[in-house]
Amino acid sequence: MTTDTGRTRLTPDERRAQLLELGVRLFSSRTIEEISIDVVVEEAGVSRGLIYHYFDGLQGYREALMRYAADELFRQTAPPPGREPVERLAASLAAYVDYVVANETGYRSLVAAAAGGNEAMRAIYDETFEAMGERFFEEAPALEMPDTPAVRLVLRGWQAMAEQLVLAWCEDKGAMTRAELLRLITDSLPLLVGLV
Amino acid sequence: MTTDTGRTRLTPDERRAQLLELGVRLFSSRTIEEISIDVVVEEAGVSRGLIYHYFDGLQGYREALMRYAADELFRQTAPPPGREPVERLAASLAAYVDYVVANETGYRSLVAAAAGGNEAMRAIYDETFEAMGERFFEEAPALEMPDTPAVRLVLRGWQAMAEQLVLAWCEDKGAMTRAELLRLITDSLPLLVGLV
Repeated sequence: MTTDTGRTRLTPDERRAQLLELGVRLFSSRTIEEISIDVVVEEAGVSRGLIYHYFDGLQGYREALMRYAADELFRQTAPPPGREPVERLAASLAAYVDYVVANETGYRSLVAAAAGGNEAMRAIYDETFEAMGERFFEEAPALEMPDTPAVRLVLRGWQAMAEQLVLAWCEDKGAMTRAELLRLITDSLPLLVGLV
Repeated sequence: MTTDTGRTRLTPDERRAQLLELGVRLFSSRTIEEISIDVVVEEAGVSRGLIYHYFDGLQGYREALMRYAADELFRQTAPPPGREPVERLAASLAAYVDYVVANETGYRSLVAAAAGGNEAMRAIYDETFEAMGERFFEEAPALEMPDTPAVRLVLRGWQAMAEQLVLAWCEDKGAMTRAELLRLITDSLPLLVGLV
């Protein structure tokens, strides 16, 4: 429970960030549909009015949460600077696998919200994966990935496969080691690009 | 508008099948959330009571529709008898691509309903894809696909890729020809299995 004194000490930006961080924590054990105004009010000790003030209601709050989680995924999968392109992308893919494994419930909820027909949620999901895909073309000369419509199609298919592989692996980690999973995801891209 | 005379001429099974066929037609231009009791009553000229009688309400009707569409997909992608295993599976994949292209709205709606968090919908979707995947193991000796947890993981990932490739191709058919898309989907499976 936050006191009035504690509340007034935060700037609006800090308060907003605090509400989003709380939501992301709720994400780890709840689907996005289970995050209601009541849950947030109870867990954060804030008034309903504050959620409406900052996010224009529950839908706005859920969308802001989705954007926050997607930005976090994008940030955590940034290719590390100062290495060879192939190594940079392998590190990025390893970070993606680790992010999904560490945030499985929230990630599944993000996928479900995006696929479930909500346009705003889908747009956030699509933009994030498109931006992650752009990283491959930025390193394209070293990767021999020509920027053609066919290669872009392959990249989208490969991203869907990588996501499914990680989510399925979370349910059956005995099927292969993390290193084998990473190698499968990393090595499959040039093979697939080679088919078009 | 069906008359009372027309209505009594159908057996219960025929009436049920008729309501499902109507729903599948509605699917081609509407998402599953847009199929309401009101829409069915208006389009089929049947009473609300009939939907409740046969399907125990709207949710039951939507689930029955999903099952009907999934069975149709499974039936239409049956590998044709009397050919070589590799040809049989290539024909099955071609049928899958053509089914998705011909029923794009309904198929996207099926994917969305399955991903969107409804357990019953997800189960129907998962069972269908699992059953389609089993076909590969039935032909396994000829395909050199050992039935191991790692290969099953790869198969699930490849199915997600194939679905995404077809759906993305529907939006950008200039990216490659149908024949190139088919070759990409068909030839990628042995390459991916070869990685584990």
